[in-house]
Amino acid sequence: MQLQKRTVFIVSDGTGITAETFGHSVLSQFTHKFTFQQEREPFVNTVERAQEIATRINSTAELDKLPPIVFSTIVDEDINTHLRHSNCIYMDIFGACVRQLEESLQTKSNPAIGRSHVSASSDEYRRRIEAINFTLAHDDGQFVHDLEHADVIFVGVSRCGKTPTSLYLAMQYSIKAANFPLIPEDFDRGTLPDTLLPHRHKLFGLSINPERLYEVRQERRPGSAYAELDQCKYEVAEAERMMRRENIAWLSTTTKSIEEISTTVLKILNLDRKSY
Amino acid sequence: MQLQKRTVFIVSDGTGITAETFGHSVLSQFTHKFTFQQEREPFVNTVERAQEIATRINSTAELDKLPPIVFSTIVDEDINTHLRHSNCIYMDIFGACVRQLEESLQTKSNPAIGRSHVSASSDEYRRRIEAINFTLAHDDGQFVHDLEHADVIFVGVSRCGKTPTSLYLAMQYSIKAANFPLIPEDFDRGTLPDTLLPHRHKLFGLSINPERLYEVRQERRPGSAYAELDQCKYEVAEAERMMRRENIAWLSTTTKSIEEISTTVLKILNLDRKSY
Repeated sequence: MQLQKRTVFIVSDGTGITAETFGHSVLSQFTHKFTFQQEREPFVNTVERAQEIATRINSTAELDKLPPIVFSTIVDEDINTHLRHSNCIYMDIFGACVRQLEESLQTKSNPAIGRSHVSASSDEYRRRIEAINFTLAHDDGQFVHDLEHADVIFVGVSRCGKTPTSLYLAMQYSIKAANFPLIPEDFDRGTLPDTLLPHRHKLFGLSINPERLYEVRQERRPGSAYAELDQCKYEVAEAERMMRRENIAWLSTTTKSIEEISTTVLKILNLDRKSY
Repeated sequence: MQLQKRTVFIVSDGTGITAETFGHSVLSQFTHKFTFQQEREPFVNTVERAQEIATRINSTAELDKLPPIVFSTIVDEDINTHLRHSNCIYMDIFGACVRQLEESLQTKSNPAIGRSHVSASSDEYRRRIEAINFTLAHDDGQFVHDLEHADVIFVGVSRCGKTPTSLYLAMQYSIKAANFPLIPEDFDRGTLPDTLLPHRHKLFGLSINPERLYEVRQERRPGSAYAELDQCKYEVAEAERMMRRENIAWLSTTTKSIEEISTTVLKILNLDRKSY
């Protein structure tokens, strides 16, 4: 069966990132019948810019001989009206929920305050950039000072996913995430590295299936002793033994995305975002 | 005026990240009357887990003497029904849009295929981890090989925002983003670093207001020559002169978040995600 092609516009007065994620989730429920070509139109915050996009929507509709699908997060009605009346299937993604909440909470919404996106000058933003810098400086055990400021310290064998997870937590949740490799020297000695002992309560272990680790290491350093399957099996077994013995919470990253790993870590360490 | 406190549950069969972002956007339009305490409940993919959450929602409603607000992305109706009938204001965030699309496209949605979240075993996910590794290896001009595989190469003075922007693009868009500092030696010589010349078409400049740069550098290395205001002014003026002379597209990061910078870069370099 031939899939029908449809054009999608993601329109926002900000970056359009929320609208894009939302649109993708909704449209993925229709990919058995359609393929989607997406155009993101960010920073649509004047009537002129809205008219320009409306013109593009209309000409796309003519070209496709089908109205495009528009996902919009725009709340300003003057701007919205130009898009809504263009030749499209118009999805006001917050609209239905905001109206339902207005009714349930018996309160009119205030779109003006809601429009404030991530602001680069807010304290929250500065904390986030600080977390990214901290995390980069404390990647792979390269900097052992300042660990008292870490929110979490990941431990695990080389290439088990510590770095991407640390960066994701810093980037998305302003978490200061250090990470330390567990290496053969640690297994021979049979104890955690000394520098980690005062921070035991912040440790979180990551492990990985040895066969998967072998694939990852072979890609990285093909043919090296470090990438041999037996070496991978040995390190993983020893690291897991150490984590169990030291009573460190840990999980296997083998089949998990960095989003899934991070979600679990936030939950277990009780670091999830809480109030606003 | 006292703000009323409401409890919010973010419930998802996946990580709940989409639901959280969406919920935050919607609720931010009500923060003139309410404060929100949020609990995220990820991986709700069995009836038992749904019953457990429903019980928690009900006891929270009793405690608060007000029904919690629930944002849910769950599509499985067997699981959903337990949550929907708990004591809450239930927001099925995809529901309204999916139904509207079913009608407009005259096609039943297929929730099962839509439920696939970021999968750790997909080629797309591997490309993403590869992009993160590439970007880390090519941070701050530390590795000059392999630049032919970069999607973009940022240039700009030290501490103008190249690293966080590069990491964000890699993390969220699987973009291989290298970055190179422009330093006084480059300004004295009056040309771009040699290594960059073959990749001129991939260059993107970032600049920053000198007063803001001064703040950032003072925080980093207080009292150093590098952090003096005159030095900041000199470097920024020279870097902008070079970018103009070399005809490199550039923008100022001073008031922009990494999301806003990245959105603009994707647009200008035409690297935006396109089809699915």
